Amino acid sequence: MFEISQDVRIVEQFLPVRDPAKIQAMSTPATAAPDPGRIFETLNAYQQTEALKAAIELDLFTHIADGASTVTEIAKRAKASERGIRILCDYMTIQGFLGKSGGTYSNSPTAQVFLNKRSPSCIGSMAFFLAHPRLMECFHDMAGSVRKGGTVSQGTLAPEDPVWVEFARSMAPFMVVVADAVAKIVAKSGEPQKVLDISAGHGLYGIMVAKANPAAQVHAADWANVLEVARENADKFGVTDRFHTIPGSAFDTSFGSGYDLVLVPNFLHHFDPPTCVKLLQKMHSAMKPGATLAIVEFVPNEDRVSPPMAASFVIQMLGGTEAGDAYTFAELSGMVAKAGFRESSQQPLPPTPQTLVLAKA
Amino acid sequence: MFEISQDVRIVEQFLPVRDPAKIQAMSTPATAAPDPGRIFETLNAYQQTEALKAAIELDLFTHIADGASTVTEIAKRAKASERGIRILCDYMTIQGFLGKSGGTYSNSPTAQVFLNKRSPSCIGSMAFFLAHPRLMECFHDMAGSVRKGGTVSQGTLAPEDPVWVEFARSMAPFMVVVADAVAKIVAKSGEPQKVLDISAGHGLYGIMVAKANPAAQVHAADWANVLEVARENADKFGVTDRFHTIPGSAFDTSFGSGYDLVLVPNFLHHFDPPTCVKLLQKMHSAMKPGATLAIVEFVPNEDRVSPPMAASFVIQMLGGTEAGDAYTFAELSGMVAKAGFRESSQQPLPPTPQTLVLAKA
Repeated sequence: MFEISQDVRIVEQFLPVRDPAKIQAMSTPATAAPDPGRIFETLNAYQQTEALKAAIELDLFTHIADGASTVTEIAKRAKASERGIRILCDYMTIQGFLGKSGGTYSNSPTAQVFLNKRSPSCIGSMAFFLAHPRLMECFHDMAGSVRKGGTVSQGTLAPEDPVWVEFARSMAPFMVVVADAVAKIVAKSGEPQKVLDISAGHGLYGIMVAKANPAAQVHAADWANVLEVARENADKFGVTDRFHTIPGSAFDTSFGSGYDLVLVPNFLHHFDPPTCVKLLQKMHSAMKPGATLAIVEFVPNEDRVSPPMAASFVIQMLGGTEAGDAYTFAELSGMVAKAGFRESSQQPLPPTPQTLVLAKA
Repeated sequence: MFEISQDVRIVEQFLPVRDPAKIQAMSTPATAAPDPGRIFETLNAYQQTEALKAAIELDLFTHIADGASTVTEIAKRAKASERGIRILCDYMTIQGFLGKSGGTYSNSPTAQVFLNKRSPSCIGSMAFFLAHPRLMECFHDMAGSVRKGGTVSQGTLAPEDPVWVEFARSMAPFMVVVADAVAKIVAKSGEPQKVLDISAGHGLYGIMVAKANPAAQVHAADWANVLEVARENADKFGVTDRFHTIPGSAFDTSFGSGYDLVLVPNFLHHFDPPTCVKLLQKMHSAMKPGATLAIVEFVPNEDRVSPPMAASFVIQMLGGTEAGDAYTFAELSGMVAKAGFRESSQQPLPPTPQTLVLAKA
């Protein structure tokens, strides 16, 4: 249903660096006057999630991009009731995803570029992972999670959990942008490069390195069911012959040895620091001396409340894991050093909310 | 657990009129640059709901108001893990409900006044209705609701649905403010006034009229289980001897006759226009000629996308009812006229997002 654009440049030109000042202004500052409206808005916020997911599911923004602009026209193309479409379109207008003028609706720039399936930058499929009932369920007893200090749901770390197949498929259109930014930094040009991609998921981090470096060989480690998606993506990007898989748990399988580059995208946040150190040690022992470790994470500032998107991510780790976290650079850097790496450094990956942490084996 | 303040003035002084321009600014304007961050934020918005509900459930803001300011102190009072409290407090800081300075947290003005149980204006109990699993469940297949044009869940309109008992208890601290504003307009001073309160719930609309007019007799109609809550509130506000109940469905029970005032707070939005007209006719026939009809509703402007809080309400009617709506004044006014009323007029009820529609029998 959703395609990953192979031309990452098309995606990038539409991805502005988000102005942190603007994001901050969206939450009421601590000095503002008491505002009960903000409480209503927050308690009803789940409706935003469900309504946007429905709009994406119904291809609302695609039908509008295709020229449907009235309730009647949109309802016909979406095979939906006029009452439902009228209410959804008005709600999407209030949320800023549509414009409304008289009785006609138009896509906002965000919807036209990122939620319309005709756009090569469409990332709408994210809804099917971010608002997946399995993920949302992790939040159903948040007070219980706060009391316990970890998930009170079944979590998402069981072997071959199908939610990660959904992740691999749904998040790919967005992740290709992050992966391409990382590849530009870590891929060597034309030089043999043995690459390990830990918890590869969609496989795009390794695949983008293989695409950037025709002499790279990529070994992707993840659950067998998820690696099927990674393999499809490797085919799509034409790197199948240099794409190898290591199915199983990153804790139990053998990674092999002699790696020049180890990619660890969005994996460490699921675990506590001792577990992360153990994993990093295992990676270290599979690497050539001087090889590069590349961690992609949500890295909040030392204050842990900024920047908002990276800092907010931690609530997902409280709801969904036993002891995961959004680690600061000081914490990541400490774990990396304990595992035997040196020269750790960080760099932001605009326009994404993620950070690249590099170190040497 | 939560108390309704009997001194409404205390509540009112903290309820600012929300600046509509400021509310609008919170959603991305349709002319802004494409912003994928807004899509992430919206798809993750349900986490705001669950996290704020957890904070209220754990009395987080009350413990902070009582002087706990570090993770260790707050965790001890909340009988919760330090990891959970640290993550929740940071997230609440990002959402604007707490301030953070070094390792200490403080309540934002909104939290101190409206979410701290020591405050007479505390409305935190709203979380237990607005984020009730039964209400949230109505949104679990929003695309299905849009296709069908109505709820695909069990809805909330079954006889004696216990969710309305939760409503009556949880929403009372906020509703007393709206009810008091309405009573100031419709209560006659010292003149005999026979009042019918339709779908009374917490009973506060009628009770506030009885409080404002010592010569008023109030008849509250709702499900029997809900009326128990209304009766408790009548006791609390000292109007028990002038508070009468009419248990059962508003469609089936007899209202009696000779009413000077009929209150219809937040009821019509559950039904389609023909049903509303039928109900209004039934009310009309129970009223004295020239008597007052007072409808309290979320009334969007004719554009149906402003003001945001009243206009957003309609999504709840799509998710939870077969044919409910947030009616414009023109629509309400038309239904009221069809039922035989005249001289309809509307007035906002600041600081609430609701509107009072008046008409004469």
